[in-house]
Amino acid sequence: MSKQQARARQTYQRALDAAGTEFARHGFADASLLRMAQRMNLTKGALYGHFSSKGEIAAALVALLDELLPHPAAPHPGTDPLTDLRDMALTIARAVESDIQVNAALRLAVDGALTGESAPPFLEELRRRATQLLETSTPAPPAEPAVLADLLVVVLVGAYYTAPTLQRSGMSTRVQAIWDALAPHPPRTP
Amino acid sequence: MSKQQARARQTYQRALDAAGTEFARHGFADASLLRMAQRMNLTKGALYGHFSSKGEIAAALVALLDELLPHPAAPHPGTDPLTDLRDMALTIARAVESDIQVNAALRLAVDGALTGESAPPFLEELRRRATQLLETSTPAPPAEPAVLADLLVVVLVGAYYTAPTLQRSGMSTRVQAIWDALAPHPPRTP
Repeated sequence: MSKQQARARQTYQRALDAAGTEFARHGFADASLLRMAQRMNLTKGALYGHFSSKGEIAAALVALLDELLPHPAAPHPGTDPLTDLRDMALTIARAVESDIQVNAALRLAVDGALTGESAPPFLEELRRRATQLLETSTPAPPAEPAVLADLLVVVLVGAYYTAPTLQRSGMSTRVQAIWDALAPHPPRTP
Repeated sequence: MSKQQARARQTYQRALDAAGTEFARHGFADASLLRMAQRMNLTKGALYGHFSSKGEIAAALVALLDELLPHPAAPHPGTDPLTDLRDMALTIARAVESDIQVNAALRLAVDGALTGESAPPFLEELRRRATQLLETSTPAPPAEPAVLADLLVVVLVGAYYTAPTLQRSGMSTRVQAIWDALAPHPPRTP
């Protein structure tokens, strides 16, 4: 990578960080491109050199969520299936707390659904993969796979929307406490 | 109540319904007083005859949530404590689905917390009462009272924010399915 490419990439990441802070705080409708540019010491015009619209920046952030979907969907044989759900939930909660881009992406994905038009694709895909994993688990899960998959989604979104700071501090601790209560088994991973 | 009082009260309720539809769809920041007035075939000025600001309308809606807090906080002796939580959750979820004013109130309460300043008082009070109930339950709950109370809050908020329509259709069905999975006991109330 040339020095110029490296600098371009760095600017791109700084733009996504600035956008993340803005979207995580204000949601899509209220986010201001001007404030994003100011956070980067750029003009709004210079920001438009990287992205053509607010929608394009939001889409770049939401695309990051795909990396958080569990791979592979195969269950760990012999593991309590709720422990697998707990691990999925914790991976996502920790990413939200540690990465402002992911934090904003989750809010953007959910806010899209609130306008009443469609379910957020990321959450639908997470639900689908969790259901699939539970359907093939041994031992069988203690309740309907679809209901437990919904619980996974609902706990994440609920903990997000009730976390009291922009950084969603405490979200992963609460998600972990809830899943430890539901799946009281020694965790597979520390 | 005089005919005039009755008419004033009816107008007040129509205003809260119009405001509820607007806030449930757009949240606080994006809600438009003009659209609310249009829904009632009023001018914006006439709407201001009933409320002095958007904040005052929002406060009137949020105040409705107090009626949904469980009374009394005493547990039902011999009932599985999770069944008590399930009943609390269902009461709130059904109110959200059947009453646009309550629907908007929950969104307003949670959105307030998202700006990062404070926890919504309604959710804090719900959490407090649920914890208190679990601490005095016999039999003892299967996990930490504070964690189960957080689960109550998180499932409600998560089911709300992932419900795909303005009316939050399916929210109570999902909340019920989740709590039935967690508290697989014959419900006390049908």
